[in-house]
Amino acid sequence: MIKQRKLVIAFTAILVIVLSGCAPVPPKAHVPLDPLPSWNEGATKANIIEFVNTVIDKSNPDYVPPAERIATFDNDGNLWTEKPIYFQLLFAIDRIRELAKQHPEWQIAQPFKAVLENGLQAIAELDERELIQLMMATHANITTEEFSQLVKDWLATAKHPKFNRPYTELVYQPMLELLAYLRENEFKTFIVSGGGIEFMRPWVEEVYGIPPEQVVGSSIKTKFEIRDGKPVLIRLPEINFIDDKAGKPVGINQHIGRRPIAAFGNSDGDLQMLQWTAAGEGKRFMLLVHHTDAQREYAYDRDSHVGKLDKALDVAQENGWTVVDMKKDWKVIYPAN
Amino acid sequence: MIKQRKLVIAFTAILVIVLSGCAPVPPKAHVPLDPLPSWNEGATKANIIEFVNTVIDKSNPDYVPPAERIATFDNDGNLWTEKPIYFQLLFAIDRIRELAKQHPEWQIAQPFKAVLENGLQAIAELDERELIQLMMATHANITTEEFSQLVKDWLATAKHPKFNRPYTELVYQPMLELLAYLRENEFKTFIVSGGGIEFMRPWVEEVYGIPPEQVVGSSIKTKFEIRDGKPVLIRLPEINFIDDKAGKPVGINQHIGRRPIAAFGNSDGDLQMLQWTAAGEGKRFMLLVHHTDAQREYAYDRDSHVGKLDKALDVAQENGWTVVDMKKDWKVIYPAN
Repeated sequence: MIKQRKLVIAFTAILVIVLSGCAPVPPKAHVPLDPLPSWNEGATKANIIEFVNTVIDKSNPDYVPPAERIATFDNDGNLWTEKPIYFQLLFAIDRIRELAKQHPEWQIAQPFKAVLENGLQAIAELDERELIQLMMATHANITTEEFSQLVKDWLATAKHPKFNRPYTELVYQPMLELLAYLRENEFKTFIVSGGGIEFMRPWVEEVYGIPPEQVVGSSIKTKFEIRDGKPVLIRLPEINFIDDKAGKPVGINQHIGRRPIAAFGNSDGDLQMLQWTAAGEGKRFMLLVHHTDAQREYAYDRDSHVGKLDKALDVAQENGWTVVDMKKDWKVIYPAN
Repeated sequence: MIKQRKLVIAFTAILVIVLSGCAPVPPKAHVPLDPLPSWNEGATKANIIEFVNTVIDKSNPDYVPPAERIATFDNDGNLWTEKPIYFQLLFAIDRIRELAKQHPEWQIAQPFKAVLENGLQAIAELDERELIQLMMATHANITTEEFSQLVKDWLATAKHPKFNRPYTELVYQPMLELLAYLRENEFKTFIVSGGGIEFMRPWVEEVYGIPPEQVVGSSIKTKFEIRDGKPVLIRLPEINFIDDKAGKPVGINQHIGRRPIAAFGNSDGDLQMLQWTAAGEGKRFMLLVHHTDAQREYAYDRDSHVGKLDKALDVAQENGWTVVDMKKDWKVIYPAN
């Protein structure tokens, strides 16, 4: 009988071991992780989560299939800082300084002389024609691959005048979390920016997780040529498309071909993108980032030269769009060093 | 002892049952499914499979990460038939007939009179200016959503003059398999066509599995307006971009922002796209479909008005690109009814 009992114990032990390896993992107590840890609790965060939970819920009449979950994000002032001026203009200033060595005439010719002498202070005083002249001198007459390398090289060394950090670290941590949260819920996230499409593509994949084919922006024309037997695309000093204001829905249609169900911006330049998004059928989400934090970032809206938020703020309030109060809604602004 | 043996048998039986439910499924004999069943065995099919197997193999020096597996496909003559003329022109002819009711002046004004009288025979004789006039009259001055609906309505009823089947059934079964095979191997498949981007988007997702945001094509300008309180995009009678020949690498760069590692075309209009693709670093795949099957489809190349394949065929032969001999390489042309 002892032998028999031993056998029973042995077999039972084996059974327990086998079964424990075989059984499904027992369900843990359900503690959902906060998908937006850098967002303070409140209406803004609740609105975002409620929207996502609605459109992913198959039993909800506002359910949206994954292929149609298009979300568009402005870049300057929405995903990264845009002060003291758009970072792309700071790149242009540094490039003018670099190129001045080969352009002695810039010591006397405007607008180059002013930019060489006064840097970003000079930029604010340029008219549109001069600004375009500056952009063409710094952005054109090289191949697309050469330009991409220039952008990467600049970002690797340049630092922001106020925060003394690389520009790619001046991205908003709460927005990084929002991008990731949407993608986890099978949204396709796009940038739709007034900034240069080729200025963004070299770094946004690493920084935002947004691939080059999901970037819409302003552009200059390019031309295909075979140079020394090698096909290249030359950047021409000619504007192709301005992806700003009423240009944003045009750019979205041209590039994406589907109307977004969610759009995120921060200035009057984003108004038409938000209107175009809002006008679709079914549940929609429109959000404006309001820069209210002079201490941790900048505070500006209706009278700002860069990132003016005036009419769009009124329209948002009239239509019940979500407005982020940066100071109140965001626990942190930038990622930890 | 009998009791003990019974116990052993009982426990063993339980163990066997438990283990059989727990054990991983035993490996079956490895019989890989043919990913390209409509392609005859031979060099063409072998080249495709060898390319895919190389770039997805992490241990291969030519491995390409999924994000960079960009494959671009011409549409007319490459994914669907392009004879007797581009189907988009047949749409334009039908639309001229429809709109003629509101345009009595077209009974005497060219090129409309000729098209109304002689249909597709008239098209071949139009010069470029007249062709653009025809396209603008049939494609512009409506909203993007209205145009999309017109395309859908036309495709739902129109039939091909030779095959008497809807145009969306005149897609190449072997190419459908190729698209699916690439996507199964984590390629991102794009259309890069000289055809109208807005003419393709309403149907290519259903027919090819290619979403609207992965379609590059020719376009006319659009304008954002608020009409009766509703935002719309109006199609303007003005060319925005011609995505053909040297325009294809430009369109690819503008829209995708990454160089393809594989490109598929069938005419001289695709030459620069293939050259641009070939000029990248690492392993590349360039393919031309040569229309050699007068019985099952059409046979044409160097002297064809539509889909001329002359210089690109020479370049393909010089560079060892893959050329599909439609008659020899394809078991079937179109999907079964």
